[in-house]
Amino acid sequence: MSKQRGEKQFCGAIDIGGTKISAALFTPDGTMSGKRKVPVDKEGGEKVAGQAVELIQDLVSRSSEEGGRLSALGICVPGVVYHDSGVVWAPNIAGWRHYHLRSKIQEKTKLPLLLESDRSAYVIGEQWRGIAEGLKNIIFLAVGTGIGAGLMIDGRICRGSEDIAGAVGWFALNPDYKPEYAEMGCFESEASGNSVARRAMAMLKSGEPSLMRRMVGGKNSNVTAQTVIEAARRKDLLARRTIEVTIQYLAMGIANLISLLNPEMIVLGGGLFQAGDILLEPVRAGFRKWAQPLAAETVRIELSRLGEDAGLYGAAKLAWEHPPVLKEEMRCRPRNT
Amino acid sequence: MSKQRGEKQFCGAIDIGGTKISAALFTPDGTMSGKRKVPVDKEGGEKVAGQAVELIQDLVSRSSEEGGRLSALGICVPGVVYHDSGVVWAPNIAGWRHYHLRSKIQEKTKLPLLLESDRSAYVIGEQWRGIAEGLKNIIFLAVGTGIGAGLMIDGRICRGSEDIAGAVGWFALNPDYKPEYAEMGCFESEASGNSVARRAMAMLKSGEPSLMRRMVGGKNSNVTAQTVIEAARRKDLLARRTIEVTIQYLAMGIANLISLLNPEMIVLGGGLFQAGDILLEPVRAGFRKWAQPLAAETVRIELSRLGEDAGLYGAAKLAWEHPPVLKEEMRCRPRNT
Repeated sequence: MSKQRGEKQFCGAIDIGGTKISAALFTPDGTMSGKRKVPVDKEGGEKVAGQAVELIQDLVSRSSEEGGRLSALGICVPGVVYHDSGVVWAPNIAGWRHYHLRSKIQEKTKLPLLLESDRSAYVIGEQWRGIAEGLKNIIFLAVGTGIGAGLMIDGRICRGSEDIAGAVGWFALNPDYKPEYAEMGCFESEASGNSVARRAMAMLKSGEPSLMRRMVGGKNSNVTAQTVIEAARRKDLLARRTIEVTIQYLAMGIANLISLLNPEMIVLGGGLFQAGDILLEPVRAGFRKWAQPLAAETVRIELSRLGEDAGLYGAAKLAWEHPPVLKEEMRCRPRNT
Repeated sequence: MSKQRGEKQFCGAIDIGGTKISAALFTPDGTMSGKRKVPVDKEGGEKVAGQAVELIQDLVSRSSEEGGRLSALGICVPGVVYHDSGVVWAPNIAGWRHYHLRSKIQEKTKLPLLLESDRSAYVIGEQWRGIAEGLKNIIFLAVGTGIGAGLMIDGRICRGSEDIAGAVGWFALNPDYKPEYAEMGCFESEASGNSVARRAMAMLKSGEPSLMRRMVGGKNSNVTAQTVIEAARRKDLLARRTIEVTIQYLAMGIANLISLLNPEMIVLGGGLFQAGDILLEPVRAGFRKWAQPLAAETVRIELSRLGEDAGLYGAAKLAWEHPPVLKEEMRCRPRNT
């Protein structure tokens, strides 16, 4: 290593989501600085890779300004990472079904780079500087537009034989099969943020009184999970009934993770759990009747502490812990143009 | 090590089940010999530990007769093994809820000893000399009187934070909660061998014609899973309908394992899968509509190849791979009495 004495070391973390890309610098002890966030270019494909490269070049400049250097990069993506090839499968970004992200980024930045799925990054982040600090058996359950889980087992990330472990949105939780399960899986269909909105719209058709109608100006198709949560906070009965069904499925899915993997902690994150005030206690009460009793007794169910930064922390930790080796020592300089 | 040149090395494997104890010698390459089987003493407690000690002493004698020595022991039990303390929790054996099995056996045999839960031993056995030979991501689903799973993830056994991972009998698969789920879990209540018999008895009350009545001499309470399977083989409609429900739940449980852990193979074993001719193909067809499609595409679903010997193979492999170190080199001699 051509590391200069006293030169500060940074790593860069990039969290590519379905709608935004975040970037930040991290020191080895987990101090984040200079966070930036840009909306994902809807054209997808090369454009999004280009956005990531610009954010990285900006991190390189900034680490240089701070008298240091960027020694590694961690990037997480909303989907599957095939670790051997560096190909990603992220269907929410146009053109990113089997996209060679690693080679695209390395071509432009010449930096050692580690790719990870967002859900694995979340659990790594929470273990590093979040609510699960220092634990070894942790599951991060992300419930937003979709549902996925990051699995840490005995301190190691579990990716499965094809890098697609954690697809818990496909948990089968209801023997009474519905056609929509075919598209996204039973658990996701019954308990994701989108499903909360869909279920509320269906319940509003009954004509029962509800605050929600006024909240969306009478246009039921504008109901979102946020509408339902807000109405439930205001004690709207229809909203509460909607959420009860969601809670039942969340409790079942969480119980299955506990009975199978006997984790120390389940960390709840993703958009839906921004309504932690409404969801956390009922979920904590609800999973017990389903889960293996000894495992249920010891597990802790907690909200994410890092929130939307969990992916950045996880990507940074990966970059620090597993610095991938490039063929020659390369150093990315700030752009001169 | 005081190993003599040319002296044959053996390890001993003991599989303690709910109804029988098996024992056998193994060479390092996985050749089994001298298998013995005795019924478990119903008094439980010390008596069962005494049975195990006798079988071990017999293995010591036999390895000596074959000009070798017994260098380690692997023992699997039907329940939970607390690896730090050597305590086991095996509720099917009287007096074995928190029983100090390791110290009891070591006191009498002075042999290095490795304890494991039966379900973990099964998956290790199948990976060593069974259907899953050489794979690294494998789940053994054991369906008999109960339901449990052994989990191998990236070549390592997953035991969970409290050594109770794999309690899949508690999988929540039906939101319509029934009181019996509280005792044994939803999946076990809906799909174990016992549940097949219970469901058949309930269906026979309808008065519908069925071969099963004649098979049990008109005494419905004598119906077992075996009765139902045999009647289904003879195309009895009520028996087939009984099994269809079981298959639906098995398919859902298997799908959940696949979506979450993305294994290369699920190995099906335990008493119920002795009816593999009736169950395997419907289960293979059934899980696909529930599981994450990419994971479902690559996974193989196979019947156990080692059958009732899976636990012995697994216990032997553990003894070879992880020889626990005793404080001094001890050698157990054949009994002189």
